[in-house]
Amino acid sequence: MKSISIKSPATIANLVCGFDILGLALEEPYDIMTLSLKEDPGLEIQHLDDHDLPTEPEKNVAGAALLALMEEISVKHGFLLKVDKRIKPGSGLGSSAASAAGAVYAANQLLGNIFSDDDLIRFAMFGEKVASGVKHADNITPCLLGGVTLIRSIHPLDIVKLNAPELHITVVHPQIEVRTSDARQILKTEVSLKQAIKQWGNIAGLVAGLMQGDHDLIGRSLEDVIIEPARSILIPGFEEVKRRSLAAGALGGGISGSGPSIFMLSKTKSAALEVAREMEAVFQQMGIDQKTYVTRLNHQGIIINQDQNEIL
Amino acid sequence: MKSISIKSPATIANLVCGFDILGLALEEPYDIMTLSLKEDPGLEIQHLDDHDLPTEPEKNVAGAALLALMEEISVKHGFLLKVDKRIKPGSGLGSSAASAAGAVYAANQLLGNIFSDDDLIRFAMFGEKVASGVKHADNITPCLLGGVTLIRSIHPLDIVKLNAPELHITVVHPQIEVRTSDARQILKTEVSLKQAIKQWGNIAGLVAGLMQGDHDLIGRSLEDVIIEPARSILIPGFEEVKRRSLAAGALGGGISGSGPSIFMLSKTKSAALEVAREMEAVFQQMGIDQKTYVTRLNHQGIIINQDQNEIL
Repeated sequence: MKSISIKSPATIANLVCGFDILGLALEEPYDIMTLSLKEDPGLEIQHLDDHDLPTEPEKNVAGAALLALMEEISVKHGFLLKVDKRIKPGSGLGSSAASAAGAVYAANQLLGNIFSDDDLIRFAMFGEKVASGVKHADNITPCLLGGVTLIRSIHPLDIVKLNAPELHITVVHPQIEVRTSDARQILKTEVSLKQAIKQWGNIAGLVAGLMQGDHDLIGRSLEDVIIEPARSILIPGFEEVKRRSLAAGALGGGISGSGPSIFMLSKTKSAALEVAREMEAVFQQMGIDQKTYVTRLNHQGIIINQDQNEIL
Repeated sequence: MKSISIKSPATIANLVCGFDILGLALEEPYDIMTLSLKEDPGLEIQHLDDHDLPTEPEKNVAGAALLALMEEISVKHGFLLKVDKRIKPGSGLGSSAASAAGAVYAANQLLGNIFSDDDLIRFAMFGEKVASGVKHADNITPCLLGGVTLIRSIHPLDIVKLNAPELHITVVHPQIEVRTSDARQILKTEVSLKQAIKQWGNIAGLVAGLMQGDHDLIGRSLEDVIIEPARSILIPGFEEVKRRSLAAGALGGGISGSGPSIFMLSKTKSAALEVAREMEAVFQQMGIDQKTYVTRLNHQGIIINQDQNEIL
């Protein structure tokens, strides 16, 4: 039976000032997925983790994405998908995108790469719709392409992978729940032109800083005057994590996706490790459990899993 | 008597979606200025054109910028400034910025380059204050540095020169008046978050397109959903100029500064020439006099004038 195993990475959407348009992929954590062709038609999903996610294809994020892909071709055979989800659902680290993008990436490999990146993004967005009710591509795009990605437009889909230098990234996932619907409702529908101009100066600075590999410019541009002031109140300890991370040498950072995870970018690994210690200390003081990752920008996105010990 | 002659170029501020943050320099038109040291103190200004601009230093744009520079050093001698202004005041092509930036650039050359670009921008902003009541740097920055420039922040001043490919630029200056105060008042102070997000996707796309030399991406990103819809009604024929320019092969464009000039970027000179014909035809049909330029992106900014025939 023909099969393939892949690693599908966690991602950070809403990259500070780049709300809804900029995202990036992380080296860790990642999900492991194995997709196999099977003789009989249909789609079977098996979970090898404790997240108790649905296995009916229509209700499953990866399943919905795969069904969208299967609709575009005349498939004679079916698929068996095994998932070891290591990116915790609800963390704000693109867990559903990793499932949706990973499934269609794996299927495309098995089918001989007949689909373009744009096609795969389009299919995976059906998975995001199952997860959150909205067909967004903020996490899917960096998950598939790696690096830092820009979604200039959703309709029509216009995505750009941006050159970016090495970046060390610290992520803390406090074990609290921020409902995406709350995070959406807390945003004002109007913003002042003055703040909007400040925001677009920072976006232009961030894109230029990434493409020029200018870490100082990246740091100066990592400022969000519109979304973060509203949403950060949903995450206890946010301001202190930010203050102490910057003091510890981070370039800057903010809320990952719609939270509750918080991320910080650093130029060096030692700064990223120092930031992790500060993050842990803040949540320890508050008595909130957390999981911290010290990782790097993932330039490749989803990759074929070569590690025989990890193949499901 | 030690003296220097320079060419100070016209500039386009408010580069479509990059309102208040992105600008560029043109090869043409430009002002010619000659600055000389003189034995006796003080500042004398002579105009060699018909624009009837003030000669009292405090009321003159170049004069105010030079006075700001002179205040920071103990000048024993004075300056004589001769100006041949070829960039029409009120055109929306950075006429006052060319005066202010040109004067302090020339002075810095005569004084042995003791000031940084940031210093010169700071001095020149005093000139802009005389011209429009506001200390803005949107035109000064591309005038001094050349190319496409980003002003990420004014306080503190944070400017970035962006890599950009060859661009052909067509400009039409219809001989009508758009008062800067009207152009300001017509803007709403609030914008919808949805439109703001669309705008910052385009800004990120424009910066990425310029830096990657991707003319198609530049073209797709040259869209302003916030400022242009409000301001374009002050310029008769704007929509038709835009429609016909795009049909003639322009990548995109919009209002130069706060108008009334309209500019279009093109990948080829032949497209830029075709655009010029369309622009001329539109204003001819309306019975409005115009002046059209077919020029290119100026990568150098202000330069020392080597042309003996043009030295004042």
